[in-house]
Amino acid sequence: MRLNQTLIPTLRDDPSDAEANSHRFMIRAGLIRQLASGVYSYLPLGYRVLRKLEAIIREEMEKAEAVEVLLPSLHPAELWQQSGRWDLYGDDLMRLKDRHGRPFALGATHEEAITSLVRDEVKTYKRLPLTLFQIQTKFRDERRPRYGLLRGREFLMKDAYSFDADTSGLDRSYSRMYDAYTAIFTRCGLRFRAIEADSGSIGGTDTHEFMAVCDIGEDTIVHCGGCGYAANLELAVSASSAAEPGSALTAPSLAETPGVRTIAQLTRFLNVMPEQIVKSIALLADERPVLVLVRGDREMNETKVKRLLGAADVQLMGELEITGLLRSAPGFIGPVNIPENVMIVADEEVRGLRDIVIGANELDRHWTGVTPERDFRIDRYGDLRSAADGDRCCRCGQPLLFDKGIEVGHVFKLGTRYSEAMRASFLDDSGRSLPYIMGCYGIGVSRLLAAIVEQHHDESGIVWPESIAPYRVHLIVIQPKDPVQLELAERLYRDLQASGVEVLFDDRSERPGAKFADADLIGIPLRITVGKRAADGFVECKRRYEPDSFELEAAKLGEHLQSGK
Amino acid sequence: MRLNQTLIPTLRDDPSDAEANSHRFMIRAGLIRQLASGVYSYLPLGYRVLRKLEAIIREEMEKAEAVEVLLPSLHPAELWQQSGRWDLYGDDLMRLKDRHGRPFALGATHEEAITSLVRDEVKTYKRLPLTLFQIQTKFRDERRPRYGLLRGREFLMKDAYSFDADTSGLDRSYSRMYDAYTAIFTRCGLRFRAIEADSGSIGGTDTHEFMAVCDIGEDTIVHCGGCGYAANLELAVSASSAAEPGSALTAPSLAETPGVRTIAQLTRFLNVMPEQIVKSIALLADERPVLVLVRGDREMNETKVKRLLGAADVQLMGELEITGLLRSAPGFIGPVNIPENVMIVADEEVRGLRDIVIGANELDRHWTGVTPERDFRIDRYGDLRSAADGDRCCRCGQPLLFDKGIEVGHVFKLGTRYSEAMRASFLDDSGRSLPYIMGCYGIGVSRLLAAIVEQHHDESGIVWPESIAPYRVHLIVIQPKDPVQLELAERLYRDLQASGVEVLFDDRSERPGAKFADADLIGIPLRITVGKRAADGFVECKRRYEPDSFELEAAKLGEHLQSGK
Repeated sequence: MRLNQTLIPTLRDDPSDAEANSHRFMIRAGLIRQLASGVYSYLPLGYRVLRKLEAIIREEMEKAEAVEVLLPSLHPAELWQQSGRWDLYGDDLMRLKDRHGRPFALGATHEEAITSLVRDEVKTYKRLPLTLFQIQTKFRDERRPRYGLLRGREFLMKDAYSFDADTSGLDRSYSRMYDAYTAIFTRCGLRFRAIEADSGSIGGTDTHEFMAVCDIGEDTIVHCGGCGYAANLELAVSASSAAEPGSALTAPSLAETPGVRTIAQLTRFLNVMPEQIVKSIALLADERPVLVLVRGDREMNETKVKRLLGAADVQLMGELEITGLLRSAPGFIGPVNIPENVMIVADEEVRGLRDIVIGANELDRHWTGVTPERDFRIDRYGDLRSAADGDRCCRCGQPLLFDKGIEVGHVFKLGTRYSEAMRASFLDDSGRSLPYIMGCYGIGVSRLLAAIVEQHHDESGIVWPESIAPYRVHLIVIQPKDPVQLELAERLYRDLQASGVEVLFDDRSERPGAKFADADLIGIPLRITVGKRAADGFVECKRRYEPDSFELEAAKLGEHLQSGK
Repeated sequence: MRLNQTLIPTLRDDPSDAEANSHRFMIRAGLIRQLASGVYSYLPLGYRVLRKLEAIIREEMEKAEAVEVLLPSLHPAELWQQSGRWDLYGDDLMRLKDRHGRPFALGATHEEAITSLVRDEVKTYKRLPLTLFQIQTKFRDERRPRYGLLRGREFLMKDAYSFDADTSGLDRSYSRMYDAYTAIFTRCGLRFRAIEADSGSIGGTDTHEFMAVCDIGEDTIVHCGGCGYAANLELAVSASSAAEPGSALTAPSLAETPGVRTIAQLTRFLNVMPEQIVKSIALLADERPVLVLVRGDREMNETKVKRLLGAADVQLMGELEITGLLRSAPGFIGPVNIPENVMIVADEEVRGLRDIVIGANELDRHWTGVTPERDFRIDRYGDLRSAADGDRCCRCGQPLLFDKGIEVGHVFKLGTRYSEAMRASFLDDSGRSLPYIMGCYGIGVSRLLAAIVEQHHDESGIVWPESIAPYRVHLIVIQPKDPVQLELAERLYRDLQASGVEVLFDDRSERPGAKFADADLIGIPLRITVGKRAADGFVECKRRYEPDSFELEAAKLGEHLQSGK
């Protein structure tokens, strides 16, 4: 492709609104343009890469015996009502009415559509297992679209759904998809980790996230260098660290702590370690009052609290609830003498503590010398804290490591969440009607594209991995007006294309510096420059990821490319 | 692919709601399923064919130097307001609001999105011409979705847009696309005609429709066997037929015609030929009153009337307007003594008529013996009638032929319709700012798929053209429990796949009749059956479009397929 015949509007300067490197370079290299907040057009270069990603995904899906379909974006509201998600999904679900006033959702995901299809078409265990996938646009009305393709409102997704007759079948389908995802991300040149993750409100029993490791990521990956354990911070379990118990079993006493609300203030004011304080967090869990206790040096993990309580929704109590339900004072909450109807749950690390400091439920007062289970009740213990720097692996005891990551893939055991709600069943070999056991598996294709750029760039632009580069060769002719240079460049262009090499040919009459800058920005793996040495039959070669160029006889270029070096 | 590993839910019986053959067979062969009225899921077989169509389209687009992009479906309302179509497009445009209450349209077409992109990125004539295309979902809220994929509300389209610096550039871009469309439809095995068509409300100067010829089509194609002239009925021009003029120049006289309103009634009641009657049709053209005169044996052509008057909107007058504006009586309208402010336009065939019958603007009365331009004025003549059976070509005089057709493609010279409205301009070589000269080019990809089935089927099912068949070979093993048969079939399956032949393998334990019926329904070009003669190394081959099968040595199958016979 000649650069002038396509549309690659490169920009010299960074766009003002681009915080992420991927966003910045994808705009500057002319891959994408914004049409509305979180809504992007793919220009020719961006679309080429997208199609290469699609091809890799398609190949690996087919190897994993998934079959491709294409489901619509317009979903009748009834479908989402059947699953219960019409109400649950909230504002992220884009909704509209047709000319007859009938409500529709724009597919944010396709569990309902696929379950309804399979419910109607697959009636017997003989047709199971079945895994269907599609590569299709999704619509989610994110509250804060940002970072270009990393968090958009209209984006491309590969979603797959497996249907099995039993849980061991689901295990097999799940692990096939897990392996396919590993293969896909590896082929794309992505640095990633598959981590244990929370199943969230989608409902289900087992889930892994595939996280691209990069600093801009909004998720925290916790992993162990020792045993390979890896989990989302929402879920990561660290070994409990036994705190220094208080020196003696003193009796509780009320301390005046005027205006001292935070742990930091309290440690200074009372001259204690944070480990000797217990924080009390007042919550409404599905509207029930709950007090969560974690050690002062720890952060409560909301996901874990939800799991322990089996709660769908957890909210911090407001002032009104604190004074009304707890009869306490905001900033000075504690478990001593709390009303009987308030459930008290404590992190494992609170177990066995003695002689601690804790809120006294009165303005400007804390208890000191308190011992859990002697001076107040604890209804339940559990792992309720977030893993933190310095923690050790719960499995092998090695130090835990923390990375930022972007979720690019998700595999998920749905079980019968949708098949039961939507009455989607099959007959087993004894004629019983059973709900399908389902799994769902997603890859954010456009997000993956951005994550790859996030990992593969330098200060001058993108550095594409060979497998998904928009072209393999970026051919530049320095002086298109020099007939010797032009003739050689044109010949190379023809020959390379004829031998199946994808070439982007820059034959513009720009100054060489501008052409080189564009080449660096666009990031095609091999740059071939036809310049003065054309007269001797030589060209300059430079790999995008290497600082130095080298000379090559033009006649040997084909051979050089074939050797794959 | 093994039939059992994919999802091809064939049906023995016709679905009750399928009127069109394509709809019927695409449902029965398990290609598509309806999710909502006019909204379909593509099952694996349907999606395979769709992707083959896409591949052909992509290839021909790239040959024609069009470059692929992908634009979003969510369009901010402002874009459509800039072009004026937010109000003009009406109920077909699906609209929604995002979580912040901002209005969006779902892309029904992408002139606005592409014009806004090019406006921002292409500022100089040096970057023109540029033709961009995409293959993407469109949303149009059809009042009456029907015939399966032939008229849907969510459908796949290839749309291309050309940007040129001048009209001769547009002519070249247009003709390149015209040729590409011809190549695409030819490669798909479609019987089609490219016809002159009306440019409609989209605005523009030149347009051709590519019509698939088939009986279920809602459009009428008029074409000449002599000179190749072809046009949509909306536009087709036929040679004027000189009517027998009245025998003498009699004077007008009022005839009592009680309850005689139609031409048929009038010919019987007054014993005249329809050619001696002139029909008067009262219209509001952009709210101006207009009377259109056509001969009694002719039908008024609304598109032509609109064009002659340069009117965007034409409505038949209601009773109120007829009595109020025309001071006439419904059913007895005529041009004699009509108010001065009513424009009178007449079809060319009215010119030179004498001694005619015409409405008298009074209940139950007609004039006889009337002569146009003596007894009433005519402000303007034009071609205002629809071509009809028996008409002759306006170019060569040969008889015109009429076919029904489905529009599958459309090429269109937009000119500056969008670039002016959206202030999209470039600088020419002398530094002047000029609007782009645009063209737009559409193929209904999913409709094309249905049109091909509409043309390629018999009473048993689909008969795919080789170029887009979902698989090349349908392999059946009659008795999978017979180890000799199964072993041969499995070997053929492996060998064919290894040599790059796409095979659908039916190794189900169904009775042979059911398998053959499915094969006929699905319509893969070559059926290979492994049965009793497997013991001797023979298989049965049957081409889908031929009635008879033939035997072949299994060992020679590869050779046979390679020969392409």
